[in-house]
Amino acid sequence: MSAPHDDDAVQALYASLTNSVRRLVDVTIRSQADLDGIASAKAKIDAAADELGSSMIPGSFGVQLDPSGSPRAWGNAVIGLRNALAPPLVVHRESDGSVWAEVTLGAAYEGPPGHVHGGICALLLDHVLGATAHKPGRPAFTGTLTLRYESGTRLGPVRAEAHVDRIAGVKTFSVGHLSTSDGVTVRAEGVFIHPRTT
Amino acid sequence: MSAPHDDDAVQALYASLTNSVRRLVDVTIRSQADLDGIASAKAKIDAAADELGSSMIPGSFGVQLDPSGSPRAWGNAVIGLRNALAPPLVVHRESDGSVWAEVTLGAAYEGPPGHVHGGICALLLDHVLGATAHKPGRPAFTGTLTLRYESGTRLGPVRAEAHVDRIAGVKTFSVGHLSTSDGVTVRAEGVFIHPRTT
Repeated sequence: MSAPHDDDAVQALYASLTNSVRRLVDVTIRSQADLDGIASAKAKIDAAADELGSSMIPGSFGVQLDPSGSPRAWGNAVIGLRNALAPPLVVHRESDGSVWAEVTLGAAYEGPPGHVHGGICALLLDHVLGATAHKPGRPAFTGTLTLRYESGTRLGPVRAEAHVDRIAGVKTFSVGHLSTSDGVTVRAEGVFIHPRTT
Repeated sequence: MSAPHDDDAVQALYASLTNSVRRLVDVTIRSQADLDGIASAKAKIDAAADELGSSMIPGSFGVQLDPSGSPRAWGNAVIGLRNALAPPLVVHRESDGSVWAEVTLGAAYEGPPGHVHGGICALLLDHVLGATAHKPGRPAFTGTLTLRYESGTRLGPVRAEAHVDRIAGVKTFSVGHLSTSDGVTVRAEGVFIHPRTT
């Protein structure tokens, strides 16, 4: 097999593993299994973690390069292919520079009953607003972020979108919002900064 | 056994299960197991999820009452005892109304390499600022939240703290910050609103 093919297969296996962990996170919250069932499931989870943990990278995933030399943020808390905390968000870029993502948020993202935690709304908006400022090999860091919550964001399908309002030197000013079938729920403005390369 | 004792035992078992899932999330990101090891671990995880998922509450956890009638937010994305996405944060309240929490954030909370995702900083600050406004049986919802990122927040031990700046009618104005051994990394201001009970 060619190396790219191998890499695709490895990527698919990691994606499949992480999706299994995402499902486990959800059922851990919602399970009504009896105590014996919980203890039995926990033993299987510990055995799986021992198996996966027999060899690990130290620290965190960081950004690694794929076989073609492109950066790969598989550990990222919002988009990470191998991070079960990440929904994961798949960020689409339009030719005009705007970005959007659609995702379904389940029980793990809850704050007020039946609704997305306000801080999870902030997490998604930080990421999509920041994505408007990112350039290949030149990441942008959040400078300021302002969120206005207009109504509760119900758990279920959510859309996040953002675009650049203006650029001034190293600063990119971005705006965006979250919406559901109820309409816009949270609006955001952010300033993202490209570190000067000295 | 008395009912309170049973409840303590059940709570400890759920906490233990969820901690096992948190460890699994971490090793899923960092594992260097070979493909056979990953496939074997995935089979165990799927079996555990099947076992836990054989009986589930519909939808999300919401807020349920414990045997003494106190609300229990075990599914919450920041503090939930049964939510493996939650670090979980344990929020301490001082007699002057200020709140604080200390937590260690690992690989699952990463954004920039070696650093906490800016949106995770927002998630934690939204929660602790909001906690200053919460009253028993009278939750507060985020109205606005403004974050100023002063430096990167390194993965590892993080402290979040907040206090009420002023109250005006249904609005509580709160301020707070995140800090690490590097000092203050993110500052936040928020307005939290108690819905009028009509």
